[in-house]
Amino acid sequence: MADTSLRRAAAIGCGVIGAGWIARLRLNGVDVTASDPSPAAGRIIDAVHDNALMAWRELDLEPAPESIGSLTVCGSIDEAVADAQLVVESVPERLDVKHATLTQIDSAAPADAVIASSTSGFRPTVLAEPLGRPERLIVGHPFNPVYLLPLVEVVAGERTAAQAVDRAIDWYGSLGMHPLRVRAEIDAHIADRLMEAVWREALWLVNDGVATTEEIDDAIRYGFGLRWAQMGLFETYRIAGGEGGMRHFIGQFGECLTWPWTKLMDVPDLDDRLIDTIATQSDEQSGHLDVRELERIRDRNVAAMLLALERNAWGAGRTIAAMRERAE
Amino acid sequence: MADTSLRRAAAIGCGVIGAGWIARLRLNGVDVTASDPSPAAGRIIDAVHDNALMAWRELDLEPAPESIGSLTVCGSIDEAVADAQLVVESVPERLDVKHATLTQIDSAAPADAVIASSTSGFRPTVLAEPLGRPERLIVGHPFNPVYLLPLVEVVAGERTAAQAVDRAIDWYGSLGMHPLRVRAEIDAHIADRLMEAVWREALWLVNDGVATTEEIDDAIRYGFGLRWAQMGLFETYRIAGGEGGMRHFIGQFGECLTWPWTKLMDVPDLDDRLIDTIATQSDEQSGHLDVRELERIRDRNVAAMLLALERNAWGAGRTIAAMRERAE
Repeated sequence: MADTSLRRAAAIGCGVIGAGWIARLRLNGVDVTASDPSPAAGRIIDAVHDNALMAWRELDLEPAPESIGSLTVCGSIDEAVADAQLVVESVPERLDVKHATLTQIDSAAPADAVIASSTSGFRPTVLAEPLGRPERLIVGHPFNPVYLLPLVEVVAGERTAAQAVDRAIDWYGSLGMHPLRVRAEIDAHIADRLMEAVWREALWLVNDGVATTEEIDDAIRYGFGLRWAQMGLFETYRIAGGEGGMRHFIGQFGECLTWPWTKLMDVPDLDDRLIDTIATQSDEQSGHLDVRELERIRDRNVAAMLLALERNAWGAGRTIAAMRERAE
Repeated sequence: MADTSLRRAAAIGCGVIGAGWIARLRLNGVDVTASDPSPAAGRIIDAVHDNALMAWRELDLEPAPESIGSLTVCGSIDEAVADAQLVVESVPERLDVKHATLTQIDSAAPADAVIASSTSGFRPTVLAEPLGRPERLIVGHPFNPVYLLPLVEVVAGERTAAQAVDRAIDWYGSLGMHPLRVRAEIDAHIADRLMEAVWREALWLVNDGVATTEEIDDAIRYGFGLRWAQMGLFETYRIAGGEGGMRHFIGQFGECLTWPWTKLMDVPDLDDRLIDTIATQSDEQSGHLDVRELERIRDRNVAAMLLALERNAWGAGRTIAAMRERAE
C-alpha cells in the first residue's frame, strides 16, 4: 500500500456535514464521488459548495475553476466508493444506519481504502463491529462548517491499523485541517463532550428562566468565546493564574468544584414546553435572518477571524498560512 | 440623584481583575482612586495598564496621554471611595473577605455611589447581607482581560434599587462594554456556569488520560471556539438545524442528552496527582512562554478578532465601533 496523496474520495451521506466534506475536498483538488438517497442532497451539496467558495474568496484562497476537484453523484454506495482512496461516511447518528452503511462501504470499497466516519458520538470499535475489514475504519469527526473549521478529531478503534490512522492524518493535513489524534475511545470524543456540557447547562438556564437563548449567546461571544477562539481553556487559565501559573490557578479555583452547583449534575427534562421556549426564543433572536444568511454571516466572521489569526501566526490561522503556501 | 456621566471611580482590590478595571476606566477618561493591601498591587496595576495601552493601540483606540484618567493609590478603603460615583470591588472570592470589604465601602462611600462587586460566584443578595445600604449593591462581573473583553454581567439582589442597576448599565456602556442584565440571581451567574461545566468535563478528560491540556485547547480553538467567538451556542445550533431551525436541531440532538455520559454528572477528585498532571501538561504546552508574553499574545489575538468583527459590523466588534465613534 503505497503512501500516495489524496486524489479520489467518496462521500456517503450528503447532509450539511457530508456536503461540507465534499466542498473542502473539491476545493483542495480532490475528485469526489457521492451517494445519498435523499432528493435534497444535490441541492445541499450545491448550496454548501457556494458558501465554501465565498468563504475561500474571503480567505483569498479561492482556487481557479479548473483546479477544483470533480463531483460525480452516484446512484449507489457501491458505485460511489468503487475507486476511492478515502471514504467519508456522514449518515445520520443512528447506530443501525451507521452499521448498515459502513458494512456496505466495507464490502464495496477498494481493499486499501480508508473509511472515516464523521460520527460525533459513536466509538470506532462500536462502529466497526459488523465490518469484515475493521482495520481501515477510523473516526474522522469534523466541525461545521467543514470547509472552514480546521479541526478533525481522529480516533482509532481496537482493531484499527495504525497505518490507516497515519494515512488519514496525512490526508487531513493536506486538506488544510488540524487533525487531532484522540488517545482513547470515548463516546463523543473530546470537543462534543465539552459542547455537550455547555449545552446541558444552557438548557437549565433557559428552563429556569435565568437567561434567554440570546442572553446566553451574548454571555459567550462578548466574553470567553473570544478567549477560546485563540487559546482554548487551559492556556487561558494559565494566564489567569498569573506568575504562579496553572498550579496557582487551580489552588484558587479548585474549591469551586465542590460547591453545590447541583444543576450541573442533572439533565433537564427536554419536554415540549422547554423545546417550545427554546425554539421561540431562538426565533426572536435570529428569526429575522434566514438560515442561509446566518451561514454567510458565520462564514464571513470565521474567515475574518482566521485571517486575523493568520496575521498573528497563531492557532487556527496557521492552517490558513499552510494552505496559502501550498497554493502558491 | 442626578444622572451624571462617570468621572470618578474607586477600585478596591487591585489584582488582575481590579487592575483590568482600572485600565479600562482610565483609558475611558475616568479618574480612579485605588486601594489594595498587597505590596504587589502597584506593579500589577502598571503591568496591566501597559498591556491595555498596547491592546488599544492595536485597536487604533489609544487615547492621548492627557485624556487618560488619573490614578491615585490610597492608603485605605475609606480614602479611596470617599468621592467615588462607582466603587468596583475585586477582592478575593471568599465570602468573609467580601463582606468585610463591602461593609467598609458601604460605610465610607457617598450615599449615592453604586457599589459593584466583580464576584464571579456570589449572588448579590448574599453579598449585601451585612450592608446598611444594600440598595446600591450590584454584581458587575467582568471578564479577563477587562480592558478588552466587553462583557459585564450585571445582577441585582433582592434589595438592590432598579436605579442603581440602570446607572451602572449606562456607565458600563460608556466604557465600551456590553452589560448583560441577568434576570435572576444564581451562583456564578451565566458565563461562569458554562465555563465551569466545560472545566469539569475537561478535568475528567485529563484525569482519564483521554486528552492532554494542549489537546483539549486545540479541540476548542481549531473548532467550535471560532464559532462561539462570534455567534455563541444557540444561534450556531440554529444553523445546524438547517431550514428546520432550532426545533429541528433539538429533535435530532435532544436524545443525546439522555445518553449515559456519566462523567458529566460527577466531579473529579482534584487531588495532588491530578493537579500535578495538569500543571505538568500545561508547562509542556505553554512553559516556553512566560505569562507576560502569553498575555500579550492573547491580547493581540483578541484585538485582531475584535477588529475583524468590527469590519463585519457583528457581535463584539460593534462595541469597538461604538467606542471609536465616541472617541471621534
